Amino acid sequence: MTERMKKVLDYVEAHRDEYIELLRELCRQPSLAGTGEGIPEMIQLVQDKMRHYGIEPTLIPTDGNPVIYAEIKGESGLTYGCYDHYDVQPVDPIELWDSDPFAAEIRDGVIYARGVADNKDGLATRLCAIDAWLKTYGKLPCNMKLIFEGEEEIGSPNLAPFAKAHPDLIQCDGFVWEGGEKEKDGPCEVTMGVKGLLYVHMKVKTATGDAHSMYAAIAPNPAWRLVQALASMKDVDGNITIDGFYDDIIPPSEEDLKYLEGDPFDPEATRAYLGVEKLIGGETKRELLESLYFKPTCNICGITSGFQGDGSKTVLPSEASVKIDFRLVPGMDPRKTFDRVRAHLDKHGFTDVELIWDSGEPAFRSDLSKPFTKAIVNAMEKLYDRPVALKVSSGGTSPMHTFCHQTNIPAGMFGASSATANIHAPNEHLACDAFIEMIRINCAVMEELSQY
Amino acid sequence: MTERMKKVLDYVEAHRDEYIELLRELCRQPSLAGTGEGIPEMIQLVQDKMRHYGIEPTLIPTDGNPVIYAEIKGESGLTYGCYDHYDVQPVDPIELWDSDPFAAEIRDGVIYARGVADNKDGLATRLCAIDAWLKTYGKLPCNMKLIFEGEEEIGSPNLAPFAKAHPDLIQCDGFVWEGGEKEKDGPCEVTMGVKGLLYVHMKVKTATGDAHSMYAAIAPNPAWRLVQALASMKDVDGNITIDGFYDDIIPPSEEDLKYLEGDPFDPEATRAYLGVEKLIGGETKRELLESLYFKPTCNICGITSGFQGDGSKTVLPSEASVKIDFRLVPGMDPRKTFDRVRAHLDKHGFTDVELIWDSGEPAFRSDLSKPFTKAIVNAMEKLYDRPVALKVSSGGTSPMHTFCHQTNIPAGMFGASSATANIHAPNEHLACDAFIEMIRINCAVMEELSQY
Repeated sequence: MTERMKKVLDYVEAHRDEYIELLRELCRQPSLAGTGEGIPEMIQLVQDKMRHYGIEPTLIPTDGNPVIYAEIKGESGLTYGCYDHYDVQPVDPIELWDSDPFAAEIRDGVIYARGVADNKDGLATRLCAIDAWLKTYGKLPCNMKLIFEGEEEIGSPNLAPFAKAHPDLIQCDGFVWEGGEKEKDGPCEVTMGVKGLLYVHMKVKTATGDAHSMYAAIAPNPAWRLVQALASMKDVDGNITIDGFYDDIIPPSEEDLKYLEGDPFDPEATRAYLGVEKLIGGETKRELLESLYFKPTCNICGITSGFQGDGSKTVLPSEASVKIDFRLVPGMDPRKTFDRVRAHLDKHGFTDVELIWDSGEPAFRSDLSKPFTKAIVNAMEKLYDRPVALKVSSGGTSPMHTFCHQTNIPAGMFGASSATANIHAPNEHLACDAFIEMIRINCAVMEELSQY
Repeated sequence: MTERMKKVLDYVEAHRDEYIELLRELCRQPSLAGTGEGIPEMIQLVQDKMRHYGIEPTLIPTDGNPVIYAEIKGESGLTYGCYDHYDVQPVDPIELWDSDPFAAEIRDGVIYARGVADNKDGLATRLCAIDAWLKTYGKLPCNMKLIFEGEEEIGSPNLAPFAKAHPDLIQCDGFVWEGGEKEKDGPCEVTMGVKGLLYVHMKVKTATGDAHSMYAAIAPNPAWRLVQALASMKDVDGNITIDGFYDDIIPPSEEDLKYLEGDPFDPEATRAYLGVEKLIGGETKRELLESLYFKPTCNICGITSGFQGDGSKTVLPSEASVKIDFRLVPGMDPRKTFDRVRAHLDKHGFTDVELIWDSGEPAFRSDLSKPFTKAIVNAMEKLYDRPVALKVSSGGTSPMHTFCHQTNIPAGMFGASSATANIHAPNEHLACDAFIEMIRINCAVMEELSQY
């Protein structure tokens, strides 16, 4: 490690408490894109913090929540793009949280908060890394572009229009995309792709109101209609039976597959983390990874109809609905997949089942030959003095495609969060040490990019 | 109509406001057997009101909510048994009520309240009819037995033990069973049987907690398991596909069937009331009635899993559950039906689906040759000067079986409630006029019973 680098990391260490407090402050502000709760306040708070650290933000309007944008000139020619989002997932089921999701309580060196690991940590990391460089040397080693959007958790409906309207703003040599995982003393990982997503709602309404269940003998039940429609879409073995669903899939290349061997994915640890009896979708690590990275899913996120309380109520419901997310793989178009679901429902007689588009995002995989990938890998290998595992894809989704597909800019997800951080779930958390580690990694990537 | 009768009805008319106020007072007291809310207060209130009207209540303990019991000696030998319940259904979905379900608000001469038509009206009716007779003549024309239970809406789990422990208390010549329907200026109805019920919960738990939905590729989804299990139980045409489900059914007799012709059931009015596009289970009035009275159902009362809020959340749920009520017909045993559902789930590989017994009640149909049936019909025909329609069964359930199967005591449901009273649903209601009508009917039945 260079002396120059060391001084920056010393500054980070010395300002550890300040940086942790910044993250907690960001977490204490709710910012739910789904309902809009706290979004205006969050936009103000992020801008205030940027200015506090010497970064001049620009608010770029979209048809939804604005993008908070900034560029900072650095010493060398390469530009480090940072994509993060300031919105968070809902907190339900709230009763399963051990502390207020917006209290950012610290217990045993771990911060518990909605968004602390997805992805207010990433957003804070960029500010802290910039601060450390600026305070230490008065300038950055490379150019930076910060793009913070506010609708990632609802499928980034306005990010593609943003990218189209501002092609200059998204030009850079590579993006860090939110964060990534690195367990304490565990392997270093960089993930260079994401799955796509199609999120839909399905609804059935059979009557103007609920009725006494004796009428079930002569009146339709919307929950049964929905159950039957769903059962027609997936068989008991987990195969998705929507006509043409698998048709356009681009299978993984030999290059893609060769990285599975070195992937740090641990089936038993994942099984234990999820708290399931047995994983599905494969027996071996390789089979499971092929499912996780290369196979689409059709997942019921939520289903609801009728009486939900304790005890019993003999009622014939009038409405039923389900929320479904499909994780897509390269080749699959969200809109075309949506049309296939509609055609399937119609063909099987479920014309009474309303299908509503929520959001869609194609998958993306980076071109691994670009210098940016090498810079990330080198930075982390120098920092940790151990090899970096390169993952071809995440099982999750980010709108990488929006910035990177046309431009062929590579994007990587890396950081120091944990696979057991409970993102999107109760008790989302991040260790304070992990957050500081993420700042160190970013400082190192900035240093490495200055070498190209 | 006799002069004696007329004087009693004049008393009822003169005390109309007082009786309506009694009903509202009973409705303002919540009494939810499902959660226990307000039950002790309701027991106290009912006893206070009975004493106020000169009836001495006896509290008979059970393993659940006690039975409130009373007998009053009358002039003649026959005994009129009155079965009512002081508990009510839950109020969900509370947001669909136009006024507080426990405010008993009167709008345009109609009382809106949970329990006002099921069945605090019936309970109040007995007290008012007794009061009118006692105040007018100082004595009743027949013997009376009042049996008010407190767990009808959760399947009367302790009523059979009560009947077994106190065979003397349930001896009488016939029961009025809760209430019945008579539209304003509409036909007079008496219903002499009920369907049975099996209420179950089905649950699937696949993980210790919810997770990010990317894991749907390699971890089981409890909602999908539940959907697949449910789909195996009923086909798209509505046939229940549980092995042996229909085996023990005793088909309706020719006698039963002949009453369908005169049944006042109106398919189009029922369709409009339910607010459905088309009724199922038959095309003609006769076919629909056969479904409603003589065919069992498998009805989803409620289903729930995962994210229920507005917007989207990409989550893999850890639990899913469904509430199902089966309406049973004579010959079907609730316990045996439960065992068949369990065996069906096991046979189809759904051993991971937990099946939980909630409550069960066999069906019952009265022996129509007993004098009690004739007394009710005569009383109503004299009161309204028009023929009475005798319905063989209700589509609903009451624990008639408990008191009446072994003893072969007939039981009838009759009153002046409406088929559109929204019982078990938001905005349950009863017209003040209808309530007064119910008191008049009861007074007339008491008079008629004194003639035998």
